Amino acid sequence: MNGFYFHNPTKVYFGEGVVSKLGKELEAYGKNILMTYGGGSIKKNGIYDKVTDILKGAGKNVFELPGVMPNPRTEKVYEGIKICKEQAIDFILAIGGGSVIDCSKLIAAGARTDRDFWESFLIKKEKASDAVPLGSILTLAGTGSEMDCLAVITKWDAQIKTSWGSPLVQPKFAFLDPTYTYSLPKNQMVNGAVDTLSHLFEQYFSRPDTNNVSDDLAEALMKNVIQNLPLAVKNPEDYNARSNLMWDSTLALNTLVGLGKEQDWITHKIEHSLSAFYDVAHGAGLAVVHPNYMLYTYKGGLSKYVQYAKNVWGISSEGKTEDETALAGIRATRDFFKSVGAPSTLQELGIPESSIDAISENVQRYKTSYSDLTVADVKEILRLCLQS
Amino acid sequence: MNGFYFHNPTKVYFGEGVVSKLGKELEAYGKNILMTYGGGSIKKNGIYDKVTDILKGAGKNVFELPGVMPNPRTEKVYEGIKICKEQAIDFILAIGGGSVIDCSKLIAAGARTDRDFWESFLIKKEKASDAVPLGSILTLAGTGSEMDCLAVITKWDAQIKTSWGSPLVQPKFAFLDPTYTYSLPKNQMVNGAVDTLSHLFEQYFSRPDTNNVSDDLAEALMKNVIQNLPLAVKNPEDYNARSNLMWDSTLALNTLVGLGKEQDWITHKIEHSLSAFYDVAHGAGLAVVHPNYMLYTYKGGLSKYVQYAKNVWGISSEGKTEDETALAGIRATRDFFKSVGAPSTLQELGIPESSIDAISENVQRYKTSYSDLTVADVKEILRLCLQS
Repeated sequence: MNGFYFHNPTKVYFGEGVVSKLGKELEAYGKNILMTYGGGSIKKNGIYDKVTDILKGAGKNVFELPGVMPNPRTEKVYEGIKICKEQAIDFILAIGGGSVIDCSKLIAAGARTDRDFWESFLIKKEKASDAVPLGSILTLAGTGSEMDCLAVITKWDAQIKTSWGSPLVQPKFAFLDPTYTYSLPKNQMVNGAVDTLSHLFEQYFSRPDTNNVSDDLAEALMKNVIQNLPLAVKNPEDYNARSNLMWDSTLALNTLVGLGKEQDWITHKIEHSLSAFYDVAHGAGLAVVHPNYMLYTYKGGLSKYVQYAKNVWGISSEGKTEDETALAGIRATRDFFKSVGAPSTLQELGIPESSIDAISENVQRYKTSYSDLTVADVKEILRLCLQS
Repeated sequence: MNGFYFHNPTKVYFGEGVVSKLGKELEAYGKNILMTYGGGSIKKNGIYDKVTDILKGAGKNVFELPGVMPNPRTEKVYEGIKICKEQAIDFILAIGGGSVIDCSKLIAAGARTDRDFWESFLIKKEKASDAVPLGSILTLAGTGSEMDCLAVITKWDAQIKTSWGSPLVQPKFAFLDPTYTYSLPKNQMVNGAVDTLSHLFEQYFSRPDTNNVSDDLAEALMKNVIQNLPLAVKNPEDYNARSNLMWDSTLALNTLVGLGKEQDWITHKIEHSLSAFYDVAHGAGLAVVHPNYMLYTYKGGLSKYVQYAKNVWGISSEGKTEDETALAGIRATRDFFKSVGAPSTLQELGIPESSIDAISENVQRYKTSYSDLTVADVKEILRLCLQS
């Protein structure tokens, strides 16, 4: 195994009803809480009322930043920073999925500097020097943002969707109640699980490939998602399936399965470019791009794709060439995505063929662990995404 | 999945040469360092010199507690507490395997109380209220003590070997350099890997058994140990194999694979009773007891033993009854232990048949997740341990 550094101090409260421990957990922080959330579904499903009751019962002053959009944008970060500075916010409580948490992380760091967060952190790549502490209550499993120090942000006018990270914005805690994901529309649940699988793929399909614990754990998580997602599609209130999917998604991106691995995150880079132009749901974009990326590049990591087909999908290599086994694994991935209702073409995402050149040229990085891509390669991958 | 709380803030530095980062890591702590270690092998393999150079270079005052024995005893804890109190120790640096780290954890908590550590923590089950911070440099993989808050201690005159834990003694950091395990005698390496497997078994063979991430991760780790231990037996300097075994052992007991699981730790309880009488190496005792415990009790968790046989050992259930499949998995476990040179009988441990009654009556707990044991059951299990 390659060397690594691992440190993940986020506290995880997992299970039905765990939010009852929120008040106690917040005792360690000041009075002024900024509650960030999305489009308001938490007001319909009762989570908003429950959490505000707890916060008020704990004697906190609650401020709110509603309306954090999927693929959160810089404007929302500025809005949050303004509240933090004006109201001397002591703690940010993000309620939602990865978009709300990611946006909150940038607010947290942006609120404790006089510099412009975009210019300083994203353009000049300066380090954050302080951050408002934050924690989350997860309502959508997939991004893993609840237990990592990363954030993805979109600057819409510049058509840039990019990522950033700092240990200072590692969430202090994450409340993971699987029942909080029950009311999620089916496509959002599926997108989240595709995102989980995609995170695992990004770490797994990279060097070194010599037998290593990280890859073995990644395979175990992949199989668990593949086992449980169809159960949750069939019955969204299957507590055990939703539990597994929720914990899978956290473990897929809390850095555990990437330890000692190169990881290239190239499919995410391509998807980010799609989203920067067409604002597609991240998981939906990945469902389209990832199998086609695999199809176009698998020869560069052939033996790993063979291992994947055998270990994750149980495909026998008997009587098959290595190429045939690898391709069977990729086909199984694509078929699985289709079977759970994920999109498989750019058309389904509403992205026209004519945009392929611009999207390909806008990708933030082309370097991969197996063999680097060119802009022309990305164009070819996206053309494959036109075929169902 | 059952609910759980997870928090593991230990920093892990993994890979060849990582100890170079020790000085920087210790900047956060005071000047007076107590270095604890075992029988002196670190003086032969150069680790002692390297670490003391780093500590002196970092301007630390170094105090020493050498001679921490395997199955560490209360006397050694008192010795360490005395040094901590007299020298106003700011940080304990444990260099060794689980025995040294466990002993250091009890010293750490015992040094910050006026109460007698044994009476207060182990007998009255009072909580520790403070502890000297500690960290470790691992030289023997197996116990997982480097990334958990538990310690096992023996009071020899009372023939009690028992465990204790507090989040206050969770190590601040662990330096894991696989090359530091190269010079270990083969039997100690094997014992460590058996201990790792046994930790995984204790968590895996417990309810709930419904499909869950924790069990899937446990299976992945078991398979990784089974793949890598024979490689390390063949070539102790196989860096990749030693890396995997080292990281497996940490992950097997950093609470990850036990999340949402009942866990009964019954085999450890039986082994602790063996060690309390005969001071056998923990891993060697487990190698003898665990397969026979499985053999005696498997019917209580039959479907799980079938799953184990199939998923971990690749045993086909075709044409077999459930019992036959389960037994094939248990036999594979026993054969594996033998193949790597681990003992399989009490005789090999130097434990006479005549001691079985006393050992069985001295077990600290008989409750298991599947079906509780009686003293008579433990006697039967230990009688099975007489047969090769």
